[in-house]
Amino acid sequence: MTSARELRVRSVDGLPEIERGADLGSLIADLGEPREGEIVVVSQKIVSKAEGRIRRLSEVEPGARAREVAAATDKDPALVELALSESSSVVRAEPGVLIVATRGGWVCANAGIDSSNLAGDDLVALLPEDADASARAIRKVIRARTGFAPAVVIADSFGRPWRLGQTDVAIGCAGLAPLDDWRGRADAHGRELAATVIADADQLAAAADLVRDKDSGTPVAIVAGLEGLVTAGDGPGARAIQRPREDDLFR
Amino acid sequence: MTSARELRVRSVDGLPEIERGADLGSLIADLGEPREGEIVVVSQKIVSKAEGRIRRLSEVEPGARAREVAAATDKDPALVELALSESSSVVRAEPGVLIVATRGGWVCANAGIDSSNLAGDDLVALLPEDADASARAIRKVIRARTGFAPAVVIADSFGRPWRLGQTDVAIGCAGLAPLDDWRGRADAHGRELAATVIADADQLAAAADLVRDKDSGTPVAIVAGLEGLVTAGDGPGARAIQRPREDDLFR
Repeated sequence: MTSARELRVRSVDGLPEIERGADLGSLIADLGEPREGEIVVVSQKIVSKAEGRIRRLSEVEPGARAREVAAATDKDPALVELALSESSSVVRAEPGVLIVATRGGWVCANAGIDSSNLAGDDLVALLPEDADASARAIRKVIRARTGFAPAVVIADSFGRPWRLGQTDVAIGCAGLAPLDDWRGRADAHGRELAATVIADADQLAAAADLVRDKDSGTPVAIVAGLEGLVTAGDGPGARAIQRPREDDLFR
Repeated sequence: MTSARELRVRSVDGLPEIERGADLGSLIADLGEPREGEIVVVSQKIVSKAEGRIRRLSEVEPGARAREVAAATDKDPALVELALSESSSVVRAEPGVLIVATRGGWVCANAGIDSSNLAGDDLVALLPEDADASARAIRKVIRARTGFAPAVVIADSFGRPWRLGQTDVAIGCAGLAPLDDWRGRADAHGRELAATVIADADQLAAAADLVRDKDSGTPVAIVAGLEGLVTAGDGPGARAIQRPREDDLFR
């Protein structure tokens, strides 16, 4: 029998409105005081803001393809233009639904573009260009400022087939193996676990979202008690979670 | 600004090997001491054991359809026979993959049947027949024994399209709204949140899985700090998370 384990997730309060160029690593280090072995989960939205990934819909000129897809999906042609420009392929385009594979490799609605928690009716946020790089950069600054190297996860809310509602998943990470592979290891009865790969990074994103009110300015949470998941190196990043297209039965 | 929030997830240790007829509610009440406003997350496997949903593959007689699907998927015909008998439809059958809609309404691999953490090479566990009813029954016993009515979530590990690895999701719940609907509410900038329904029950299942080693006998975890999610009534159950087939683009 193992001893009882406990994890704790705390929200980090007091972050200012994030502008382009904001130093997220320093803000998180000072306000959240992450320690060695902890895991910092950062909402995609503030990463996009800091990285200047905010766009004004009125400044977007929809092309012919965007107007066509917008008509098929009943969506704003400017939003569709942005989504297509961020995408490598369209997975589904139906009334009310536009699911794409982003250039970064994520399958999600509207290329992950959304408009909540932005100060302006006309503004939308694109996903970070490379959220694994974003996570590594934040980790590096936290380490330089505190001497600790917590893991960093960048999280966004995605819908999913078959189930209603969104859950937070990881779109970037550093200092964490995003997938925990138990294949070949034995269960409590000494029987081999046939096929259990656990998406820890996604579960961390989901756990962090539980302490976050969607209407509040609490885009950072810190998970303590899972020191065993944190690695010295930055690791492969969340892109390791992407199911290769040729293995995917649902594209 | 909201005040900092913290959630805590603790594993419950010391549960005996669960046999058919075991009184899970009393075991959890005594060993986990759940309190008012807490959320008890129970692994599907011990619910299936307590409810006698264990089968012996050598006693299953595969029919013609099962043998055909087994050949197409390279799977054990006895396992496929059980999976088909638990299913209302086959979503995908490809080499190595059998995804079905269960009679209970879940879309998952092998009808959720698996063999890990069972004391016998030949044994497999089916999903509970109605895990919402299982959750209500456990909650009722905990309430009778302790005077407290924590929410109860029954969790299982499911794969998903587009992303590798499994995450724990809710297949049953009581005392919790499984979906938190923020549509129509305003964000921090007073801007309406367009489409944000959060699958809290699934995120709770994922958070609980993080304190569980897959090879250990720790199938129960308790979440504290989210009192606002716990309801007096049992609510609609996890079946409210099931995406109606006619709205689902991926079947």
